[in-house]
Amino acid sequence: MRILIKDIVNKESESAELMGWVSVRRDHGKIIFIDLRDRSGAAQVVFTPADKKVYDLAQQLRSEWAIAIKGKINRRPKGMENPKLETGEFEILAEELIVLAQSEELPFDLDSEIALETFLDWQPLVLRTEKNRNIFRIQAEIVWAFREFLKNKGFTEIQIPKIVAQATEGGANVFKLDYFERSAYLAQSPQFYKQIMVGVFERVFTVGNVYRAEEHSTTRHLNEYTSLDFETGFINNHADIMTLENEMLIYIVNHLSKNCAKEFEFFGLKSPKISEAIPSLKLVDAQKILKEKYGIDCLGEPDLDPQGERKICEYAKENFDSDFIFITHYPAEKRPFYTHPDPAEPSLTRSFDLLFRGVEISTGGQRIHNYSMLVESIEKRGLNPENFSFYLQAFKYGMPPEGGAGIGLERLTQKFLNLENIREATLFPRDLHRIDILLSSIKNEKIKNE
Amino acid sequence: MRILIKDIVNKESESAELMGWVSVRRDHGKIIFIDLRDRSGAAQVVFTPADKKVYDLAQQLRSEWAIAIKGKINRRPKGMENPKLETGEFEILAEELIVLAQSEELPFDLDSEIALETFLDWQPLVLRTEKNRNIFRIQAEIVWAFREFLKNKGFTEIQIPKIVAQATEGGANVFKLDYFERSAYLAQSPQFYKQIMVGVFERVFTVGNVYRAEEHSTTRHLNEYTSLDFETGFINNHADIMTLENEMLIYIVNHLSKNCAKEFEFFGLKSPKISEAIPSLKLVDAQKILKEKYGIDCLGEPDLDPQGERKICEYAKENFDSDFIFITHYPAEKRPFYTHPDPAEPSLTRSFDLLFRGVEISTGGQRIHNYSMLVESIEKRGLNPENFSFYLQAFKYGMPPEGGAGIGLERLTQKFLNLENIREATLFPRDLHRIDILLSSIKNEKIKNE
Repeated sequence: MRILIKDIVNKESESAELMGWVSVRRDHGKIIFIDLRDRSGAAQVVFTPADKKVYDLAQQLRSEWAIAIKGKINRRPKGMENPKLETGEFEILAEELIVLAQSEELPFDLDSEIALETFLDWQPLVLRTEKNRNIFRIQAEIVWAFREFLKNKGFTEIQIPKIVAQATEGGANVFKLDYFERSAYLAQSPQFYKQIMVGVFERVFTVGNVYRAEEHSTTRHLNEYTSLDFETGFINNHADIMTLENEMLIYIVNHLSKNCAKEFEFFGLKSPKISEAIPSLKLVDAQKILKEKYGIDCLGEPDLDPQGERKICEYAKENFDSDFIFITHYPAEKRPFYTHPDPAEPSLTRSFDLLFRGVEISTGGQRIHNYSMLVESIEKRGLNPENFSFYLQAFKYGMPPEGGAGIGLERLTQKFLNLENIREATLFPRDLHRIDILLSSIKNEKIKNE
Repeated sequence: MRILIKDIVNKESESAELMGWVSVRRDHGKIIFIDLRDRSGAAQVVFTPADKKVYDLAQQLRSEWAIAIKGKINRRPKGMENPKLETGEFEILAEELIVLAQSEELPFDLDSEIALETFLDWQPLVLRTEKNRNIFRIQAEIVWAFREFLKNKGFTEIQIPKIVAQATEGGANVFKLDYFERSAYLAQSPQFYKQIMVGVFERVFTVGNVYRAEEHSTTRHLNEYTSLDFETGFINNHADIMTLENEMLIYIVNHLSKNCAKEFEFFGLKSPKISEAIPSLKLVDAQKILKEKYGIDCLGEPDLDPQGERKICEYAKENFDSDFIFITHYPAEKRPFYTHPDPAEPSLTRSFDLLFRGVEISTGGQRIHNYSMLVESIEKRGLNPENFSFYLQAFKYGMPPEGGAGIGLERLTQKFLNLENIREATLFPRDLHRIDILLSSIKNEKIKNE
């Protein structure tokens, strides 16, 4: 019966079976040591020449071989403990060894600094490193906390399609698809469906892939990413959504502190600073600050550019000791048709972006819930309301004031860990140049019916 | 401060604010009654002519109007209780009324039997009915339990892309996509990525959309559906996966019994029968039974047809009192290249389907983990291993024996609730004829850059 490596600390002097990967083999004179790794941790395994057959086999072991061993768990001799390992006071004296899978020689040292292009080319291998396991374990816990927070608040999870008949957010950045004899598109967001579902469950959330056919290649853009989306009815305005998102982020940060302390420690990081009330600035006020404090003249622009986002985050850090800042009241012209105008100044909207450590990680706001107003807003964009008839049903038959937000999971992960490139926080990133391997090297296989 | 409708039972004689939708309005002489619905339940609200302004407004209320009211929570007069409502011993005497959104007159009675085509055309409205809210609340809890079970077992959740460069499962049933100047495809399953991630985390799961460009239109097929996928390393064979899936289904059923008793009751249903050891038959033995007991001659066929699946489920019910049955050892020729052959009879595989109430809801098995064997299996299908080089990395560098399964969420929901058509268990089903509305009625909007 296999036990997990982390549990050997409770089994001194017992015999045990372990399985995992060889991280490294060291030969010290007659003794062979390996570091064995499984999903729970790592431990030292010792092979002595006492049993020649096992010993000879152990001599063949190389990094990344998958093995099973049986042996006795011993306390390490005094002075030989490894404080870096949680199991470092113990080791396993191997008595049996089974090779489950050999590995070819590694193409490079997994302990070295690995360049981004190398990481991308070799993900199936490089993702096995401690750094990468930590990144994606943290990512999994972010998603877990997101859902748990919302479920506790009475939100219902929904599963929704990504194949759509129209571009959700408008714009040209949609991937086109052959759908039988017609065209369809990949959804830019779950926006329409989560809004429709407010009419059903009041409060909904969904986690799923979204698609942007953007041709730029930056450290913060992907063509396919994971969006954490929620939407809720019976709100007063966008401030309710901001409050909810603020609470959610506190919940996520607390969850990570509790469940991923080790992983953060690996990066030498502490949890980000997040206040009970994340500071908030109207776009125009942010622009005034950028001009006055940083000499950046962007007044009248409908959005902040990347430099503006970085600087206003610096400002938030200096003045509010906050890693986060909300920017609100973006002009209607630059927001999708469903964005609720600000009644006090209808050219602006009840919308917000949430910036975190220099980058926008979330967009949200109040939506137009009034049917006629929504139809009018569609028409104003030169779009045909008939093409939105399905979506519009939800509003024709009584939709309360509602709003919501979407959070980019990879960006949030990236910023939590201060990673330079969003691709480091993405399992198998898709971009202009790459679907797993460089697109230039892919020969599409003729698709055959088997 | 708004309270939820279900909480009025604890607030007798108090004043409260409630929000929700008018399900129905009834005028009894001078008194107006409405049934008010929110995400927590429903309750009766009473308007009397005492306050003429509120009363006059209440007279305008119609089904699906979204409203906010303030009023006093009273115990209903003796004999006037409604045992069908959880709040049925109470009612709210309205003192204030705010209309948040009006509704157009409903196109049909939401309480009537609604035909499938009508449901599909009018989902944003019809999903609001109790029946549909129950279906999708149960679906949300299935997903919750699936993840919770696996997390407790040491599985890590992964988020993976759906845009792929090759058809995952082989076959012609892939949707093709314009990916910048190239072609890409929509993933038929997360198979490759979950296998790769076994090398990283040992145990992984993922919930996401998968795509099948199948041209048939049946009660159990969709072109986009939600797959609940898991994969785990260090197994002995496919039986370990079956055991795990068995435990998972027990966990899901127990979770539903605890959390969705009301919802199942609505359908007049109890939880399905699920044993500690779901019965299992080899395909060939199932075929023998079909021939002997039901006169269905399918010996030598590589799979069961829909009739065979129904009959073998009848057999499982009669002989093992089980709603579930595993069929194992499908021929290699009809399984994807990564399926592990049965060493005892290499033309067969260590694979299984899980049937539930007449339909296959899950497919799984042990995979080939040996690199050379996997390359050989790819070549045997006439495919080029070079095109799988990224995936193959995971196996080149030490992959232990591993396996997993995928479960169709919509089918599982459908079968739990004995729904006739899978579309009834799907939010916004995509098929040959429909993306929200009938494809024949969609005019693709010219996509413009805004």
